[in-house]
Amino acid sequence: MPLTHPLIKDGWFREESEESFPGQAMRLRVAEILHAEKSKFQDVLVFRSTDFGNVLVLDGIIQVTERDEFAYQEMITHVPLFAHPNPKKVLVIGGGDGGVLREVLKHDCVERATLVEIDESVINLSKKYLPNMAKSLSHEKVQVVLADGFEYLKNTAARDEADKYDVIITDSSDPDGPAEAFFQQQYFELLYNALNANGMVISMASENIWLNIDKLKSLKDICSRVFAVTECCYCTIPTYTSGQIALMCCSKNPDLKVSVPHRTESRDREAQLFRYYHSGVHSASFVLPRWAADKLRGV
Amino acid sequence: MPLTHPLIKDGWFREESEESFPGQAMRLRVAEILHAEKSKFQDVLVFRSTDFGNVLVLDGIIQVTERDEFAYQEMITHVPLFAHPNPKKVLVIGGGDGGVLREVLKHDCVERATLVEIDESVINLSKKYLPNMAKSLSHEKVQVVLADGFEYLKNTAARDEADKYDVIITDSSDPDGPAEAFFQQQYFELLYNALNANGMVISMASENIWLNIDKLKSLKDICSRVFAVTECCYCTIPTYTSGQIALMCCSKNPDLKVSVPHRTESRDREAQLFRYYHSGVHSASFVLPRWAADKLRGV
Repeated sequence: MPLTHPLIKDGWFREESEESFPGQAMRLRVAEILHAEKSKFQDVLVFRSTDFGNVLVLDGIIQVTERDEFAYQEMITHVPLFAHPNPKKVLVIGGGDGGVLREVLKHDCVERATLVEIDESVINLSKKYLPNMAKSLSHEKVQVVLADGFEYLKNTAARDEADKYDVIITDSSDPDGPAEAFFQQQYFELLYNALNANGMVISMASENIWLNIDKLKSLKDICSRVFAVTECCYCTIPTYTSGQIALMCCSKNPDLKVSVPHRTESRDREAQLFRYYHSGVHSASFVLPRWAADKLRGV
Repeated sequence: MPLTHPLIKDGWFREESEESFPGQAMRLRVAEILHAEKSKFQDVLVFRSTDFGNVLVLDGIIQVTERDEFAYQEMITHVPLFAHPNPKKVLVIGGGDGGVLREVLKHDCVERATLVEIDESVINLSKKYLPNMAKSLSHEKVQVVLADGFEYLKNTAARDEADKYDVIITDSSDPDGPAEAFFQQQYFELLYNALNANGMVISMASENIWLNIDKLKSLKDICSRVFAVTECCYCTIPTYTSGQIALMCCSKNPDLKVSVPHRTESRDREAQLFRYYHSGVHSASFVLPRWAADKLRGV
């Protein structure tokens, strides 16, 4: 019997949220539902779309499509990793699909990448249906921990300096659900304590300048209370609401801005490694429209 | 009796195009249908949405919503006008809603702005339902011509030098419909001939890098055969498909790049005049993701 899902009707998946983006909705046409379950933590749906490849949906919100996932994965990874002078240890909170890890491993200087994902279903489904992302999960430099990211940080915060991270990437789902704690000040304090002196953090903001600039400002204010430097950049990606997502970038060292790439690859090497990222896009992604820049600066 | 429209069902307007963006669709919730007609040239729909203000739809494609129109109007206007050293005469092809004119008139150096719109319905409906855009249509520097833009250029191309333009803005609808001719080489040749020596052109590309990069590349190739400089920039705007639109920018003078603002306003003045545009966004809007930049460069 073919699978069904309440958000798929007449062959179209619909993404709607009266809470987060009232009055607008996105639809993707479904070729086949591949998997639908209530995992221990969330509603999980995977379908093959007619035009965007396989699609992973958590609690009704599109997480990745095979057609455009590279934009988000590249930007959330390479912005902090190229901004950092010498990233060796990287922690990914969430990101069980493996897409961010795939990008982290493109940096030869990285010695160890730890992924902390709460939901084993996401990992297993990605291995099956998103192999181009999940392939990195079994890499020799990678350690996968099945745990709640917040608890993981709390329990390991007392470790000695040698265990701290250079870059931490929060690749979570939206705050309504298991990721709620990742948008609170206490979480950013835990991140701060888990970082080396030059450490940097980037977090999926679950927002963009068009949807709810006040919520984005609140998140920036939270980060600013903890970190010396907080900057906001964005990435264009058609299957996220409004076609873009904001990324909140924090640096512990006041002299290291995340908006400036401190390392660069040659143009040839960039062309081999990346589809979205290059050093020009790195800086340009921090240039926001005037009203948004003013609002986030508190003008 | 309340108005109806075939694209509005169960209180939602749906934007779909199997031709232009198969497998994806946008929906906006409708509070009230304000106007629906088949004009002499196209299907015209105006509705009040629950969250995006009044919305103008031509042939099923969203043209403007009151909530985000400023992004498009500001970028398609201020990019060429600030790139030009001294724009005095401006021609707008299409743009019957008046939004581009509103932005053109923010430049005190502009002495005359001519609007050539084919469809009087668009002008009249905008006066009624989009007053913040249409207000500029009656400005003393403005001349409104009811004509087909292509024919207008053809018939006036033989005029003497004194009648040529410094900047021409094509603010048309998509190529399927009355705007079809605006995407052909002959049109850009007409634009070229209607320009002064330092003249610049910007055209709504009806595309973006995510949807159909091949079509965008074709348009750039057409422009490159006519103009000394052709560059592509973009503007983020949530109610256009994929959340952004590409703008094709051409310059007659090989030493004048459209990507560089040749005039700037003070920061205070920018803050008074603009919501989206500033000189930083001007340049950053030409920085495209690697795959798109390479494709458009022909790499």
